[in-house]
Amino acid sequence: MLSRNELNDLAKSIKRDFPIFEIHPGLVYLDNAATTQKPASVIERQSRFYDHSNANVHRAVHSLAEEATDLYEQARQRIASFINSRSEEVIFTRGTTESINLLAYSFAKSGMVKSFVVPTFEHHSNYVPWQQISKIFGIKFLPLRLDGLEVPLEKIKESLETLKDPFVFSMTGLTNALGKRTPFEEIVKLVHEHGGYFILDGAQLIPHEPFDFAGTGVDFLAFSGHKMLGPMGIGVLVGKEEILKRLPPFLYGGEMIDRVGMEDTSFAPLPYKFEAGTQNVAGAIVLATAIDYLEKFDREELKNHIQNLTDYAREKISSIDGLRIYSPSDSHGIISFAHDNIHSHDLAELLSRLSGVAVRSGHHCAQLQLKELGVVSLCRASFYIYNVFEDVDRLAEGIRKALRWFA
Amino acid sequence: MLSRNELNDLAKSIKRDFPIFEIHPGLVYLDNAATTQKPASVIERQSRFYDHSNANVHRAVHSLAEEATDLYEQARQRIASFINSRSEEVIFTRGTTESINLLAYSFAKSGMVKSFVVPTFEHHSNYVPWQQISKIFGIKFLPLRLDGLEVPLEKIKESLETLKDPFVFSMTGLTNALGKRTPFEEIVKLVHEHGGYFILDGAQLIPHEPFDFAGTGVDFLAFSGHKMLGPMGIGVLVGKEEILKRLPPFLYGGEMIDRVGMEDTSFAPLPYKFEAGTQNVAGAIVLATAIDYLEKFDREELKNHIQNLTDYAREKISSIDGLRIYSPSDSHGIISFAHDNIHSHDLAELLSRLSGVAVRSGHHCAQLQLKELGVVSLCRASFYIYNVFEDVDRLAEGIRKALRWFA
Repeated sequence: MLSRNELNDLAKSIKRDFPIFEIHPGLVYLDNAATTQKPASVIERQSRFYDHSNANVHRAVHSLAEEATDLYEQARQRIASFINSRSEEVIFTRGTTESINLLAYSFAKSGMVKSFVVPTFEHHSNYVPWQQISKIFGIKFLPLRLDGLEVPLEKIKESLETLKDPFVFSMTGLTNALGKRTPFEEIVKLVHEHGGYFILDGAQLIPHEPFDFAGTGVDFLAFSGHKMLGPMGIGVLVGKEEILKRLPPFLYGGEMIDRVGMEDTSFAPLPYKFEAGTQNVAGAIVLATAIDYLEKFDREELKNHIQNLTDYAREKISSIDGLRIYSPSDSHGIISFAHDNIHSHDLAELLSRLSGVAVRSGHHCAQLQLKELGVVSLCRASFYIYNVFEDVDRLAEGIRKALRWFA
Repeated sequence: MLSRNELNDLAKSIKRDFPIFEIHPGLVYLDNAATTQKPASVIERQSRFYDHSNANVHRAVHSLAEEATDLYEQARQRIASFINSRSEEVIFTRGTTESINLLAYSFAKSGMVKSFVVPTFEHHSNYVPWQQISKIFGIKFLPLRLDGLEVPLEKIKESLETLKDPFVFSMTGLTNALGKRTPFEEIVKLVHEHGGYFILDGAQLIPHEPFDFAGTGVDFLAFSGHKMLGPMGIGVLVGKEEILKRLPPFLYGGEMIDRVGMEDTSFAPLPYKFEAGTQNVAGAIVLATAIDYLEKFDREELKNHIQNLTDYAREKISSIDGLRIYSPSDSHGIISFAHDNIHSHDLAELLSRLSGVAVRSGHHCAQLQLKELGVVSLCRASFYIYNVFEDVDRLAEGIRKALRWFA
């Protein structure tokens, strides 16, 4: 196991693989929960696809299209091996938000469930689809208000016991506003014991820890490429085959079709049933390259380094006068904070302008959670594998400098 | 106006801007209706975004995010100027298929129309969404069977006269299987006279001719980036502001939200109401670069050249024994054909293997149209701005060579 300083040295060497830090040498990028930067290998793979292999996939026998199809299906296998699922269970989408909307529409249309249960600390993309689509289809929507920063299993169990019919329970593995790692493995069991389907929003979790789809028993997993070194515009939905087979399609057109009659249509087998229209072939292939990059390293060590950064940041900034940390004490990858007297937008702007430190400010698409915390806006510093202790020092100095500017 | 040969010389010079033809010097790429190749400027713009400006947009005040947001909104303006609409009317989607599914779901949810009317020659992506989503929401689905290759206005008028309530009429500007340019400008008027909304599937049309959204009066326009030199995973939906305002959102989450309450949510103004989750920011920016490339030229001249290629191809291959051309005599950009004795997949495969000519074979996502033509599979040669007469010669020679191989 690498020491704290050895991990920091590893991160320094990783950083050199990312061209943006060469082009902006003063940049301290701490907005990784919104999107990560891309290593040279990912950027080059994208160019190489368009230079060498660009074609639309499937249904064509010319050699370019065959090559593109092979690369696309290899990417699917790569993703399946990354999260330990089967290839047929991997559906390419535009991103986590589309993956979750797909599930909400498909479950609603299927008639398989009577209610949608969602904690109120979820990202809007894992709350509003269930809230809104339930209204359209006459499904019961049950927002689950948990206590502050904790995820009390007993309270969840009590809520589930009131449900007599099958339901969907959708939840994040790592909250995006505060960086709380949820005990989703336990909740999967509770949900299954009560006859529900468990959906894991993995947008924040999957970039940060190794995941075993088959092992955890979650029924569905959604995540995005761009938050884990991959390009924008590509994401993944993984689902258990037997459930995906029973769900109706979401988008219609193109490859997801088997035969079309005037009045009705039959659909292609998995995973194509859920992939309508021209896919983001380049995006899928380049996401596989991003995964190759991530898995060059021991992911547990990367996780330890990010935890070290998070803990160090908590320590460094907690002593700043008037600054309040909202992330729980065990948060991973994220430290969210606000100052008593300064709006978080102003603080974030000054951090960027005076010190080159990029943090995000606002409600982080978690208005209900922030409301429960009694705050409307937070600054969020979020870390990834190329961040180093010096970045945290720059953050702390930057906050102090901004405060002096206001004083 | 450039002569036929001057246009061909222009196309030759255009071809030199596309790295794939340098890397595959023997390639004759005639699968442009499926996806086009990308010029160096487009590929480089994509890399440059990730090297220099990569950040998530909106809701952040650090300088990278501001730069990415500016570039993204400039891309929206660029697209608005390209098709003569206002910026607020431009919604970024994943592609044409998503744009049309968005409209089908939103119109169905809105209660604003009682029926969906769609010609049977449409691409599956503009047929099956209407067919399937109408079933879910109890809307009448009216497939319009037109006569062979023609689009008889009288027949359409008669059909529309039977409709008493508001309806959606969705139609392509250029059919993807055969290359028929539809008289959509006339049909827009008919549809409006009868109280309907007109949706134009521009996936094939927009890459081929200048378009005036405000001038034509269509209510909605859908198209894809990857069929017009842009990257995969980005498309556009343009809609009249007053109708977009009345339509409910499609996907939920992220930037499309204004305020979230436990039980209900209010949505952002246009165009954000329809842009859920992290957008394909890079894709949008690079699509604008593709448009810059296209508009460096006189688009009428590019169109003339592609028409010359199409006519030349018809002339060259019509004399081949046993070969039947299915495209109408005025087709644009596309020549679809089949041989009496050889399956089109075999012909396409041999064209690629023996002669390096890439054409697509199959039903081209237009099973109903092919059924009306009495054929299950066609070879389709489709042209774009970098194709030259020599490519057509290679196609004709390639077909003859393939036929000799079979003989």
